[in-house]
Amino acid sequence: MTNHTLDSPTFAVVFSDILAARERLRAIVPPTPIHTCSTIDALAGRSLVFKCEHLQKVGAFKFRGAWNAVSKLSDDVAARGVVTHSSGNHAQALALAARMRNIPAYIVMPKNAPAVKRAAVVGYGATVIDCEPTLAARESECARVQSETGATLIHPFDNADVIAGQGTALVELLEQSSDLDAVVTPVGGGGLLSGTCIAAAHLKSNLRVFGAEPLAADDAARSLRSGAWQPPTSPSTIADGLKTSLGELTWPIIRQQVERIITVTEPEIVAAMRLAWERAKLLIEPSSAVAIAAVLTPEVRDLSGLRRVGVILSGGNVDLDRLPWM
Amino acid sequence: MTNHTLDSPTFAVVFSDILAARERLRAIVPPTPIHTCSTIDALAGRSLVFKCEHLQKVGAFKFRGAWNAVSKLSDDVAARGVVTHSSGNHAQALALAARMRNIPAYIVMPKNAPAVKRAAVVGYGATVIDCEPTLAARESECARVQSETGATLIHPFDNADVIAGQGTALVELLEQSSDLDAVVTPVGGGGLLSGTCIAAAHLKSNLRVFGAEPLAADDAARSLRSGAWQPPTSPSTIADGLKTSLGELTWPIIRQQVERIITVTEPEIVAAMRLAWERAKLLIEPSSAVAIAAVLTPEVRDLSGLRRVGVILSGGNVDLDRLPWM
Repeated sequence: MTNHTLDSPTFAVVFSDILAARERLRAIVPPTPIHTCSTIDALAGRSLVFKCEHLQKVGAFKFRGAWNAVSKLSDDVAARGVVTHSSGNHAQALALAARMRNIPAYIVMPKNAPAVKRAAVVGYGATVIDCEPTLAARESECARVQSETGATLIHPFDNADVIAGQGTALVELLEQSSDLDAVVTPVGGGGLLSGTCIAAAHLKSNLRVFGAEPLAADDAARSLRSGAWQPPTSPSTIADGLKTSLGELTWPIIRQQVERIITVTEPEIVAAMRLAWERAKLLIEPSSAVAIAAVLTPEVRDLSGLRRVGVILSGGNVDLDRLPWM
Repeated sequence: MTNHTLDSPTFAVVFSDILAARERLRAIVPPTPIHTCSTIDALAGRSLVFKCEHLQKVGAFKFRGAWNAVSKLSDDVAARGVVTHSSGNHAQALALAARMRNIPAYIVMPKNAPAVKRAAVVGYGATVIDCEPTLAARESECARVQSETGATLIHPFDNADVIAGQGTALVELLEQSSDLDAVVTPVGGGGLLSGTCIAAAHLKSNLRVFGAEPLAADDAARSLRSGAWQPPTSPSTIADGLKTSLGELTWPIIRQQVERIITVTEPEIVAAMRLAWERAKLLIEPSSAVAIAAVLTPEVRDLSGLRRVGVILSGGNVDLDRLPWM
């Protein structure tokens, strides 16, 4: 990891990047709605405002960053396409963003990725490239595609344009609900959380920012507690979007601006997901449920000064044939 | 049925009733969001705008009518409470509306109603009164409660205040998306559809209004085709909110103002529900899926002049342990 000092960080993203991203997004998609649920408020002990990124294009906030990165490319560079390695929402987001700009997208996916995710990416018109299910294989395959095609790598989170795009969710949320005392986002690689930090610092400097993470993949929580980046430890969690660890660009921002990262257990994630589906009619994926589970923990319930809390629900891509309570 | 002439109907509801209802609702709940999905648009062959009543309070448009009816009661009358017979969304809606006004609600339910629906009503603070699962038993039990308590009967759909409340969904929808050529709503008892008719006629007289109904409960379609109210025939459909037949107040409005009622099969309903969940992340119940299934039929796809169509998704109360594709 690059070493950043806490006092004079040079962050990869500044607020004007987020504002520019917001204009690029505003031109093609309306703001996602917010939603409230009195039943969940009662359980949380305060008012919650849910930002519905599962209703974003491709069913995830990832479209924000992918679109910002793709739309910023010059015509010459864009024409050679974009490439990434992902089997998750970023893959679909990049595939759709590329199709919307009418350029090629190459998605490197582990051979063992679920057929439904592969089909979704192909459905958006991308070329899927198989690789062995290891980080080394993914990165070397990505490098090969880059050198052969000239495609631009769009990393799922450790990319300044992606981070700036993800920060637009909070810009919208504060326009929709200006009276928030805090915001909670799930944290995996940290693109959403770090973008949220930059937007918060400039739009509402007293807005408290929290991350929410599966206990089974708690590298971000351990990093923040220790003050030093901690490696992941082969996490196994139902929140499959949150297995990645923080990046070189996201960690310095999170380290400086996040108040705390709340960890939740697997049963808490499943219970929060079911609660959101049953009572709030929010069709969210487990990674989103992590943020709801966090605000229901005694740790957060006991925090004072939080009258109204925004919760960014990251996505809704779920295998409907295998729901976790069935 | 009361006999109404087609040329000079005296409808139970006029547009000013809907506007008044809209003010009563606006004071307590924000408009429900709209949503679009390019994948479903491609299948429908045109642009669809979904009005998300599953994100309404109690997860259904029924809250609109229940709140309008409850809030219109004088203090004296309200203090004696409200009563209805329903095991569906109207029961929950009336229970919540009564709790919000701090008055008693008595819900007559068949003994064999699902425990989860009973629990939801009790959760909203209502008193549940068991009856035998017949229409006669429900009505006599309702009458007994009325005479013993002085509670006001709020019928699920054949009530002018309820119809006026349901009409507010289209008022909001046209504010959110004014360029609609048509609107489709599910039809059971016809409260939503008839309220939609009155609002459409006054806000946008060239807006074409369609009903959507399960083929297995096609009494409204048969009524409209024949021009005379047709009785139901013990319908069995997964769209449990649409088993009721049109009422004395709703049928005359629907007869005059609905262009056609589209019927859909049970497999079409399940496929539309799964499509809405999987691709649009809309957690809707089968009754809502009936309206989506309708716009995907060749019958509707072949209609000309419909560039953009509003689809009112009626609710999202689903038994998550028994999804129809599992």
